[in-house]
Amino acid sequence: METTTQQLLCKNVKALPPSFIKGMLKATQDPEIISFSGGLPSPLSFPMEALGKSMAHAVERYGTKLFQYSLTAGIPELREFIAARCNEKYGLGVTAADILITTGSQQALDLIAKVTLDPGDGVIVEEPGYLGALQTFLQYAPTFHPVALSEDGLDVEGLASALAAPRVKFIYTVPNFQNPTGLTYSAQNRKAVYNVIRDKNVILIEDDPYGELRFDGKTLPYIAAGRFDNCILLGSFSKTATPGMRVGYLVCKNAELLETIAAAKESSDVHTSVLSQYVLYDYLTHNDYDGHIAEIRALYESQCKTMLDAMSECFPASVSYTRPDGGMFIWCTLPEGKTALDFFYEAVECKVAVAPGDPFYTAPKAVRTFRLNYTNASKEEIREGIRRLGTLL
Amino acid sequence: METTTQQLLCKNVKALPPSFIKGMLKATQDPEIISFSGGLPSPLSFPMEALGKSMAHAVERYGTKLFQYSLTAGIPELREFIAARCNEKYGLGVTAADILITTGSQQALDLIAKVTLDPGDGVIVEEPGYLGALQTFLQYAPTFHPVALSEDGLDVEGLASALAAPRVKFIYTVPNFQNPTGLTYSAQNRKAVYNVIRDKNVILIEDDPYGELRFDGKTLPYIAAGRFDNCILLGSFSKTATPGMRVGYLVCKNAELLETIAAAKESSDVHTSVLSQYVLYDYLTHNDYDGHIAEIRALYESQCKTMLDAMSECFPASVSYTRPDGGMFIWCTLPEGKTALDFFYEAVECKVAVAPGDPFYTAPKAVRTFRLNYTNASKEEIREGIRRLGTLL
Repeated sequence: METTTQQLLCKNVKALPPSFIKGMLKATQDPEIISFSGGLPSPLSFPMEALGKSMAHAVERYGTKLFQYSLTAGIPELREFIAARCNEKYGLGVTAADILITTGSQQALDLIAKVTLDPGDGVIVEEPGYLGALQTFLQYAPTFHPVALSEDGLDVEGLASALAAPRVKFIYTVPNFQNPTGLTYSAQNRKAVYNVIRDKNVILIEDDPYGELRFDGKTLPYIAAGRFDNCILLGSFSKTATPGMRVGYLVCKNAELLETIAAAKESSDVHTSVLSQYVLYDYLTHNDYDGHIAEIRALYESQCKTMLDAMSECFPASVSYTRPDGGMFIWCTLPEGKTALDFFYEAVECKVAVAPGDPFYTAPKAVRTFRLNYTNASKEEIREGIRRLGTLL
Repeated sequence: METTTQQLLCKNVKALPPSFIKGMLKATQDPEIISFSGGLPSPLSFPMEALGKSMAHAVERYGTKLFQYSLTAGIPELREFIAARCNEKYGLGVTAADILITTGSQQALDLIAKVTLDPGDGVIVEEPGYLGALQTFLQYAPTFHPVALSEDGLDVEGLASALAAPRVKFIYTVPNFQNPTGLTYSAQNRKAVYNVIRDKNVILIEDDPYGELRFDGKTLPYIAAGRFDNCILLGSFSKTATPGMRVGYLVCKNAELLETIAAAKESSDVHTSVLSQYVLYDYLTHNDYDGHIAEIRALYESQCKTMLDAMSECFPASVSYTRPDGGMFIWCTLPEGKTALDFFYEAVECKVAVAPGDPFYTAPKAVRTFRLNYTNASKEEIREGIRRLGTLL
């Protein structure tokens, strides 16, 4: 029986499954819990003093521009900065006109789905894939075509057959240190993916919040950003400076598509906080941003190593896991016969929280995988938490 | 013939009419133009020095909370502040749990439409109505039921018949100093509107960005906020402190509805800029906010009076117009035989910009109405601009 409120909701919203996360969150509210379940950057990764200086100087430097309505596309200074950085680091050959500032990358996911998806339209996603993206796309009632992700990257044959499905609008990828697996597409896999999509009329989303957090191996070129007009590269300052300001961006050379997304953004929030944009721009241009990123990388590398070392010591060989070259996550697979959800509840009993793999898949099944985040716990907490998990395995 | 990009867009987006505004904006880019066409607050309304102080002290006062991910609902401190103010000023009887911080009120409009509207669902709007809301709702392909707005408020009989239409999900109102007309619903009209909706299962949006900018007459109670669970009151700091920070809020006592909107917000941008929220909260609690609003009111009253005096002097009696008790706009009606669009282009020739009334109606027709904004021009500009417009009439 519908409540009177449900009668007022649209079909897509009524069809949404109950939030998997909310139920789990309740189980992990206890402040004594050591949490590896979230995806928060370390507070040590925020350049607080430098951002504070930028805030203190902002009024004198930017005046009323800080406070007035502004352009939907974002402040020109920051878009120029981003374009220059994309060109310098990745040779994308873009200009400020190809950049749209978004209220975090999350907004970009929502806007792209909003302007492209009719109910039933196809969306190709990595399996397992980023939960926050899956939930956002679900609002538009798409047909998901999951493609397996493995150590090498995306299953190229699987991608080719998924692309043969009708009405596929976009492919969503996180090629570097993927969430939830920590896996990175190899250089060869990127080329193979590009060759499959290059002559298709489809959008490729390359979501890259973690790309700069590489602590092992060499930076790899993007799959298609800068070369394929329908590629939308998503970038963010959330993992390299601050997530609280909600400043992300998208890069897209297809001007018609970009303009359509910008029009949807105008209806969505007019523009991203100008205060956030100017403070961040001021920080980026008055400090050694690359030096700061190098510090975060070193921090996360040592946190990751601490966790992997503890896992190697405390976990039995029957538990397998990824060894990320960067980013924030390790993905574990339990032996046959044990579900991640059972393990989650056992772990909570021991005051440790993990993220069970279930919501990272497009269809419910009792999976044996779970995600560990190593960026928001101290080394002592990491060692103690992994030790406790080990006693359950 | 569709472009390949259009093939990737959803039906609702492809059906959107071309932006009326974009074409007009091009005509008004000339920096020599005196513009009454926008809706910008005066830069004098920004408490720059005080906001600058809050920015300078923010790191020491709020620490890492300024920079980390935060709650989708908004920071608790600001929600408490808003609830207390709603209770003190309007006796709404709400708590922080009834408040959702939004990235400007614009986001609230988008989220409400997003969670409620299936294509063809009914939306009741004032005619003429706020363009930014109409454009946002249009993205969800509703059936508009316009109800006439006049000096007294909303046409109550028109509202009752509109409510008899099938699948009406919400009514959108701006009861104080409406955009675009500057009109305010009378106390009697508010009661009559409330009596029509009180036993209906429909959402009433009371959008109130200008309510505190009253320079004449007494504050009136809301139509239904605080009494009708499906009422969603929208508030904003854009017109009383700064629009650039993008901080608005919605107040709703229907917890199920509020939670659904909050879930959509989570997918939309996770949360509103925490920096914006804390800086604003700090400003509000360390300064005389009501005293600042009184200054804005006095400023806008004198700008409005200057414009009305100039109109009385320069416009012929055949041009009628509203006399707002607050807010930012005057609404003019040309004599028979002259369209607002023709007048707009004639005015641009004289280097003055007005907002022709056309896009404020749900169906295109050659209207004789146009909007004048008096808050973002000096008194000299107001007098000179109105003088030039007078020569065309």
